[in-house]
Amino acid sequence: MTVHVIETHKAFGGEQRKYRHHSETLDCDMVFSLFLPKQTDNKPTSLIWWLSGLTCTDDNFSQKGAFQKYASQHQLAVVMPDTSPRGTAVADDAGWDLGQGAGFYLNATQEPWAKNYRMYDYLTQELPQLVYSLIPNFSEKESIMGHSMGGHGALVIGLKHPERFRSISAFAPILNPSQVPWGQKAFTAYLGPDEKDWAEWDATSLIAKCDSAQPIHISQGTADAFYEVQLNEDAFLQAAEGKKVSYEKLEGYDHSYFTIASFIEEHLQFHKEFLG
Amino acid sequence: MTVHVIETHKAFGGEQRKYRHHSETLDCDMVFSLFLPKQTDNKPTSLIWWLSGLTCTDDNFSQKGAFQKYASQHQLAVVMPDTSPRGTAVADDAGWDLGQGAGFYLNATQEPWAKNYRMYDYLTQELPQLVYSLIPNFSEKESIMGHSMGGHGALVIGLKHPERFRSISAFAPILNPSQVPWGQKAFTAYLGPDEKDWAEWDATSLIAKCDSAQPIHISQGTADAFYEVQLNEDAFLQAAEGKKVSYEKLEGYDHSYFTIASFIEEHLQFHKEFLG
Repeated sequence: MTVHVIETHKAFGGEQRKYRHHSETLDCDMVFSLFLPKQTDNKPTSLIWWLSGLTCTDDNFSQKGAFQKYASQHQLAVVMPDTSPRGTAVADDAGWDLGQGAGFYLNATQEPWAKNYRMYDYLTQELPQLVYSLIPNFSEKESIMGHSMGGHGALVIGLKHPERFRSISAFAPILNPSQVPWGQKAFTAYLGPDEKDWAEWDATSLIAKCDSAQPIHISQGTADAFYEVQLNEDAFLQAAEGKKVSYEKLEGYDHSYFTIASFIEEHLQFHKEFLG
Repeated sequence: MTVHVIETHKAFGGEQRKYRHHSETLDCDMVFSLFLPKQTDNKPTSLIWWLSGLTCTDDNFSQKGAFQKYASQHQLAVVMPDTSPRGTAVADDAGWDLGQGAGFYLNATQEPWAKNYRMYDYLTQELPQLVYSLIPNFSEKESIMGHSMGGHGALVIGLKHPERFRSISAFAPILNPSQVPWGQKAFTAYLGPDEKDWAEWDATSLIAKCDSAQPIHISQGTADAFYEVQLNEDAFLQAAEGKKVSYEKLEGYDHSYFTIASFIEEHLQFHKEFLG
């Protein structure tokens, strides 16, 4: 596995980096960003995965998330993958909610997507091995979080891997994609029209089947324009009854990164509790 | 004066807003951003002007500056003007360091720039009246700061108005534009080739002539690729001898907003001391 550093900026005593590599899984070149906290006294560094939303790249959270201060304080590395495979040879769609920038963190089974759209395998097999090798004094402890489509991704990947991720958090996640327009469009394209093939990629179905789930923290702005149609929490919270889920409404906050920046300290504090 | 709110996002208990208005001074439509802190107990709100660098708009600092937390804590409004007049009817240049996005915060005297490029008048006469009217419980206390070309702007405007701005700060400012390539190119175009017309727009000339200047705080990254050629501090610090200038070198930090985000808390703390 070869990886090239293409940017590095000192930030809050640590390093905000950007890398390029060739992904075998996705059959294309990919970039990702990685924040490495200041190395203090050889303290072990834990890893948080941040998954971004529709239209985003690895840059949105690194530039607008305002997380680096707290990641440095808590000795946390944060990896920010891109949101889909990329490139002129990769299938795409004219809409901003399908194709490049909208990979939905799953493995597609339908043409023309199946060849490249394997973000789930990329994030659970190929990229971790690469990222682990880049973290000095890696504690081997991980948590996962994300925003909107990336909140869906964090819940799905987290719930499928309770042995790997100690905690999960999300801002304005698509909690029940099978039942909302964004998810129905993407799942029909990537997975086909048979809804029974969608369940394994739907956090509401997954949490209903879990014996126990990791601690989960979700923040949702009440002024989020996508809240009612795309992000409703009722089915998820019902399916999650008895699980360790805290669901917080943020009065007057919207779907933007200004909301994420405002509450990222609280989310990283939540993860730190379980990462030790 | 008519002004339209075109965006508003709750952030850290306050509001991150974007406005559009028609500027008589610049003879074009302009946008600007304004952060209003949470109103607490009718406490008076002071105002900080942030001036951005080459190629920037009003968005760069609002999205990447990570300042809102501290502005809310200190009851500070922060206004972020654009960096030049804008629009298809406004003169421009193919280079990124001249024309739109590169107004240098001065009044141009040369064609084709003189008609629109009057950022100094805009920032000292027209825009303040508009911004003051938007701040609840305005304390009538102001400070000014900026980055790179905007650091030059903050120093020039601040030093010309000691009665108005209580403190000045800058990240990686162009301290002596008359003597460096960015400034020489812009000043020749906007002000003509006679260097004696440049002095009133050069912080090094201005501070040399001041009887006393406001407290000034400057941060400069040592890994800033523009440091040696464009941002050297020697002449400025020599001209500023005896004035209240603190000049801080940031080891390993570069010219990016990651540096600004890392030290914005310190800069706002500096201003807060003089804004009371």
